[in-house]
Amino acid sequence: MAIPNIKLSSGHDMPQVGFGLWKVDKAVAADVVYNAIKAGYRLFDGACDYGNEVECGQGVARAIKEGRVKREELFIVSKLWNTFHDGERVEPIVKKQLADWGLEYFDLYLIHFPVALEYVDPSVRYPPGWHYDGNSEIRPSKASIQETWTAMEGLVNAGLSKSIGVSNFQAQLIYDLLRYAKIPPATLQIEHHPYLVQQELLNLCKKEGIAVTAYSSFGPASFLEFNMDHAVKLTPLMEHDTVKAVADKYDKAPSQVLLRWATQRGLAVIPKSSRQETMVSNLHCTDFDLSEEDIKTITSLNQGIRFNQPSNYFPTEMLWIFG
Amino acid sequence: MAIPNIKLSSGHDMPQVGFGLWKVDKAVAADVVYNAIKAGYRLFDGACDYGNEVECGQGVARAIKEGRVKREELFIVSKLWNTFHDGERVEPIVKKQLADWGLEYFDLYLIHFPVALEYVDPSVRYPPGWHYDGNSEIRPSKASIQETWTAMEGLVNAGLSKSIGVSNFQAQLIYDLLRYAKIPPATLQIEHHPYLVQQELLNLCKKEGIAVTAYSSFGPASFLEFNMDHAVKLTPLMEHDTVKAVADKYDKAPSQVLLRWATQRGLAVIPKSSRQETMVSNLHCTDFDLSEEDIKTITSLNQGIRFNQPSNYFPTEMLWIFG
Repeated sequence: MAIPNIKLSSGHDMPQVGFGLWKVDKAVAADVVYNAIKAGYRLFDGACDYGNEVECGQGVARAIKEGRVKREELFIVSKLWNTFHDGERVEPIVKKQLADWGLEYFDLYLIHFPVALEYVDPSVRYPPGWHYDGNSEIRPSKASIQETWTAMEGLVNAGLSKSIGVSNFQAQLIYDLLRYAKIPPATLQIEHHPYLVQQELLNLCKKEGIAVTAYSSFGPASFLEFNMDHAVKLTPLMEHDTVKAVADKYDKAPSQVLLRWATQRGLAVIPKSSRQETMVSNLHCTDFDLSEEDIKTITSLNQGIRFNQPSNYFPTEMLWIFG
Repeated sequence: MAIPNIKLSSGHDMPQVGFGLWKVDKAVAADVVYNAIKAGYRLFDGACDYGNEVECGQGVARAIKEGRVKREELFIVSKLWNTFHDGERVEPIVKKQLADWGLEYFDLYLIHFPVALEYVDPSVRYPPGWHYDGNSEIRPSKASIQETWTAMEGLVNAGLSKSIGVSNFQAQLIYDLLRYAKIPPATLQIEHHPYLVQQELLNLCKKEGIAVTAYSSFGPASFLEFNMDHAVKLTPLMEHDTVKAVADKYDKAPSQVLLRWATQRGLAVIPKSSRQETMVSNLHCTDFDLSEEDIKTITSLNQGIRFNQPSNYFPTEMLWIFG
């Protein structure tokens, strides 16, 4: 069955199920992307910060060269890192990222975090991370979101990205962005799973015509490797009795139920898997429908618990981003 | 004992304990303010939206006329309502609010909510509330926070307010505001009590030199009248065993312990009371010190529960403001 599309406010279609490239090791990224394309994935969600754009691009190039897919059938997403928020830094870094991917344009380009940090030249350190010196110092820049967004709009006008959006933005900042945006954000990408539903934020986006992409759809599972207390203590969603019961009822995997719960509520999802079988079952999570009642039951697991702040990659002094 | 001051980034001193004017009925507001001044209060926290600025000003005028206090000994706070965010609306409405109070200047003027709504002329409806027609329609305006903040800075330059700040702002929007502010916000006012500690937001404000004022210091008690489910179900903080045990230990009222917990953590507080005795005990909440351990014990009651969103005065479609 075909993967459904979401019509973005930009007029472009975005596949509702894609492949997330966070934590895909660059040693295997080319093969992972190539295999995902073979499995039927068309959307790939990358970022400067993931440190694997060159390799992901190699996977894409191979698939195109072999005639498995055309560029225009793919939907490639990338993100602007914090150190490139100054207006004049945006276009040059996008051109570098496009060169890394071997692409002429992105389908969607997002502000990764609403945090402007001082510029770090790619020749000095790339990806730059949070700390100016790569160690301990965080240096803000003076770029406002308006300055950055104006430069993002320039990318659309220059043909470097078909659509633009934001990631990890809270509702207040989205509302403010909508005051001055000439091109409104096509999408918002946020952490979203049954433990973190964020219904009010979703309502705002729905009202404003902003498509929402969920990351970490499996909740704590994405963060167990970081030994986070609250991720370790909570029942993994895939082992949760409620999720397992629904999965049994429909004869599906718990992971498929979690993805279907999100997609039936209108969100896009970007699961990652290195196993071919899981890749395929994740992609085909829209081949069945949950009942409204089952969707509500899963939604009721909400505890407002966020996982994306492990201190080994997220500086403690920046945790206010999620608060 | 004298009420401690907090030195604001503007250079002005702000009393750490003041009197909150939300929900003070205008029929009694003049007397309440006058009595609070007699009891020793110097800071009064008002707002256009509270609908009682004329009467509060009468209380102030009487106390000044009787020689009980001088204007320069008072610290009068007011707030910009959502319908006056358009740059050119800010100064005129502040002049009206000052006229209502009978004052030449405010000591502190805050953006009440980070939500720009369409202008409503004061001759049509005042205070305007959330809905354009006073009934059901909410109409956004196109004013960005930067536009509004620039006009707020103009108030300082025009001598209409000594300091300016914000209220109900999330961390991301504060960080963005700091990118372009020529005059940084002197204070942030937020809901804050042991059930809602918001430590990351407090850390950001501390780092950026923004003083924080807590509203609803007694938690659910402020909201019981609205019959909110979660306010009714939770143990009132003043009846919580932990708070009562600490209060007994120091031979103080639970309300004093809750206020001291906040003030020892560096926040300003603005309790309200109509009873003279409580007025006095609230004001003198800084006459004793809690041990670090007792402060930590109270802080550990945190559940991240917010109360300020009762649907009888807060439009459902705007609940995204709180997260």
